[in-house]
Amino acid sequence: PAPAPSGSALTNNGATVNWHSQKLKHVVDSGDFNRAAVDVVFKEALKMEKVKPNTKESKVLSGYIMSTLFYEPSTRTRLSFESAMSRLGGTVLSTESAGEYSSAAKGETLEDTVRTVEAYADCIVIRHFQEGSAKRAAAVASVPILNAGDGPGQHPTQALLDLYTIQREIGRLEGIKVGMVGDLANGRTVRSLCMLLSMYNDVQVYFVAPEVVKMRDDVKAYLTARGIKWTEASDLHEVAADADVLYQTRIQRERFLDMNEYAAARGKYIIDKDLMRILKPTAVVMHPLPRVDEITTDVDSDPRAAYFRQARNGLYVRMALLKLCLADGHPDIPL
Amino acid sequence: PAPAPSGSALTNNGATVNWHSQKLKHVVDSGDFNRAAVDVVFKEALKMEKVKPNTKESKVLSGYIMSTLFYEPSTRTRLSFESAMSRLGGTVLSTESAGEYSSAAKGETLEDTVRTVEAYADCIVIRHFQEGSAKRAAAVASVPILNAGDGPGQHPTQALLDLYTIQREIGRLEGIKVGMVGDLANGRTVRSLCMLLSMYNDVQVYFVAPEVVKMRDDVKAYLTARGIKWTEASDLHEVAADADVLYQTRIQRERFLDMNEYAAARGKYIIDKDLMRILKPTAVVMHPLPRVDEITTDVDSDPRAAYFRQARNGLYVRMALLKLCLADGHPDIPL
Amino acid sequence: PAPAPSGSALTNNGATVNWHSQKLKHVVDSGDFNRAAVDVVFKEALKMEKVKPNTKESKVLSGYIMSTLFYEPSTRTRLSFESAMSRLGGTVLSTESAGEYSSAAKGETLEDTVRTVEAYADCIVIRHFQEGSAKRAAAVASVPILNAGDGPGQHPTQALLDLYTIQREIGRLEGIKVGMVGDLANGRTVRSLCMLLSMYNDVQVYFVAPEVVKMRDDVKAYLTARGIKWTEASDLHEVAADADVLYQTRIQRERFLDMNEYAAARGKYIIDKDLMRILKPTAVVMHPLPRVDEITTDVDSDPRAAYFRQARNGLYVRMALLKLCLADGHPDIPL
Repeated sequence: PAPAPSGSALTNNGATVNWHSQKLKHVVDSGDFNRAAVDVVFKEALKMEKVKPNTKESKVLSGYIMSTLFYEPSTRTRLSFESAMSRLGGTVLSTESAGEYSSAAKGETLEDTVRTVEAYADCIVIRHFQEGSAKRAAAVASVPILNAGDGPGQHPTQALLDLYTIQREIGRLEGIKVGMVGDLANGRTVRSLCMLLSMYNDVQVYFVAPEVVKMRDDVKAYLTARGIKWTEASDLHEVAADADVLYQTRIQRERFLDMNEYAAARGKYIIDKDLMRILKPTAVVMHPLPRVDEITTDVDSDPRAAYFRQARNGLYVRMALLKLCLADGHPDIPL
Repeated sequence: PAPAPSGSALTNNGATVNWHSQKLKHVVDSGDFNRAAVDVVFKEALKMEKVKPNTKESKVLSGYIMSTLFYEPSTRTRLSFESAMSRLGGTVLSTESAGEYSSAAKGETLEDTVRTVEAYADCIVIRHFQEGSAKRAAAVASVPILNAGDGPGQHPTQALLDLYTIQREIGRLEGIKVGMVGDLANGRTVRSLCMLLSMYNDVQVYFVAPEVVKMRDDVKAYLTARGIKWTEASDLHEVAADADVLYQTRIQRERFLDMNEYAAARGKYIIDKDLMRILKPTAVVMHPLPRVDEITTDVDSDPRAAYFRQARNGLYVRMALLKLCLADGHPDIPL
Repeated sequence: PAPAPSGSALTNNGATVNWHSQKLKHVVDSGDFNRAAVDVVFKEALKMEKVKPNTKESKVLSGYIMSTLFYEPSTRTRLSFESAMSRLGGTVLSTESAGEYSSAAKGETLEDTVRTVEAYADCIVIRHFQEGSAKRAAAVASVPILNAGDGPGQHPTQALLDLYTIQREIGRLEGIKVGMVGDLANGRTVRSLCMLLSMYNDVQVYFVAPEVVKMRDDVKAYLTARGIKWTEASDLHEVAADADVLYQTRIQRERFLDMNEYAAARGKYIIDKDLMRILKPTAVVMHPLPRVDEITTDVDSDPRAAYFRQARNGLYVRMALLKLCLADGHPDIPL
């Protein structure tokens, strides 16, 4: 594919920079994962689905310590990482709100905090309100840094679990048709997913968004440069009839100054029982969660509602990444 | 006994709805525990008192993960549950303040949160400010829900540990005389304890409360309907001379608008050294803690001061409940 | 040495009161550690540096539970203790902000909280805003109390790790020359370090502080009474040329009413690349962290910059203390 346009969120450095020796070095940017790297992670994640408690596989990270360093709250992501570490026999040191409570309040830099915490833990899961924080942490850390979201920047484990869910639910990534719905301007997940999808052939993307939160030009240019077909559509029903995946997102209230505008945007594209009648029997609905009302709860019992399975896949992908970062001897990792 | 009057806090559904296969399904409402179920829990709790570190018994929940989901802070209850899980070899994912930090702030329903967290944990301990929350969680959860207090509603593990403490301290529940003292109007613990005590024969209950926080009529009617004798008394000394158990409670400042009224209520019924002289040598003083000054600290060294032992019993009862919820093969559970 | 002057922070009770049977009873006050006790701790800490995951040594506290009870946030100290416990196979119950969330808000005394939490944990690490809190906790606790800082009072594990770092970096404590720099009036760490250093022969201490935050007279008197030479110096370069250790501290903004005064004090004694040229090749720079700008970051790569190693030593010293408090059979402990 053509080189990526500039802009940190869209830079694809190629996976090689990200791996060292037999281990995954850091998980900072989804753009660091090429197809070969994604394949390794997904192969491992598939194994993770079958890990049973009290087996040898469930103790592969025994003796390892993971610290979560969350400068911004995110119960879901934190618990997912902590569960992943626990399911592999590792130990967790937890920080629910490093921003408020830590030395940060006394003026310590993130770099100093990381150089201190790396004495206590074998890897650090960091969530920070500032874009680029995870990269800064990785630059000074002697232990793997896993980016659990850095403000408007990257959230690579979410992007990988989204892609993994499509692979698991539909059975393929080549030739997939994905309808992205909702707040596409601010949605970090859809932006990252576009980037990852661009590595696969014959992908078709539909953007269905209220005018005020349309997909931005940088992503469109990125897709075009890589030969990915994308279309802006205003009729969710038309897209639903053709898509393999409907990826719904929450309209983020906090982005709106005008509450009338918010209400209009929020109510525009709802996935409900009626829409599910149009959706192909083999298609699925995804959502990064939390959901407000953009998918009605009567859809939950439909077998094509994949969002809670998607959340569970986050566990498997994070288990895979932690194992690849910490455990010795992964002959599959491309060097 | 006669059927329970309406009102969710006072509904006794019978334990059978609560058990499935060989396990305890959920711990949501103390009213779900009939005498047979209570017997099973207490028999297990007694075994828990003898669990020693690094023994087979201390690893019965090895490989299991418990998540605490506390929308309302309660260090004591959270630590008690987390210690119980740890003492049985289980792993804990902790959430000190889910309300403030979680997706709840973005508008996620409790049901969605539970359906996400159940991917990360094998059981969920939930504390919530809203009555009925634990029941709502249990309705959608595929893993056991343990109610650690839902606002003015239920706090079943507290009720069970209170009953267990009476059994352990006095040696019986039949024919017991219990003086309940303090804030009986708002005290969730005394209300639940009344309900559980009503399953036993010849129980006698004394209510000793300042006028403004008297025991409510619903509980009195519940007791009457089940043939339990209850008396309202204004003289704590008289009650102390006759009771097997004095169950003291804190006057909850936050319930009062008029601070003079609060001060009067708070100072009215104090358990001190003088009162202990009247108490029978075989009787005990209980308190759900935290205490302010309704029991003076010079009572602590009296062997009849059972409140710190009561706190410890909470550990054993919660160990028992977690084991009954999670571990396989409990032939004793009534089906 | 001569007896200590009065004042709790400066009282040396002798280590014997602190040890019972084969175990360390509590870690409340660095003044409780005499040279023999310090030797035991350091000998153990040295062993801790070599503990590898999944070895017998890494499981010496398996089955033990440590609870952190932090009334005041301190991510660094909390994670250090929790990592130490984990590295020895123990389990952690964590409380990030007991002050805000616990029963304390309802009026419970620290003593009651400790008597409750000791039912859940085998040792309690307490951090509290009030001087003397750890001592109060230890007075009622049946499990070891480890003081993680009680307001302006003691922070004994920090004092011990500082001393341990000097021993490890310089190879001796006798005849050491230590320049203490920065906020000496309010810096708890430098005060405690002075006290511990006073147990060793031929120690020379330099105080280099802005006028408004000079070392207080009580410490000076304490040193003099014990025959320790101390000098107040205003030229950091002169001290740097002679010292074996430069112990830099942060000027604490929160102590100043006048921000001009703060700015002047803060900028006065900076350790930078220029100063490092004067420092002896065998000398080291220490800092309790967090740092703001009193050591410039270009010093970090100098091998004599010992502050991140110092943080790591905190882990080893805390591992040693936890093991000495909890594990059975330490024939080396002086009785």
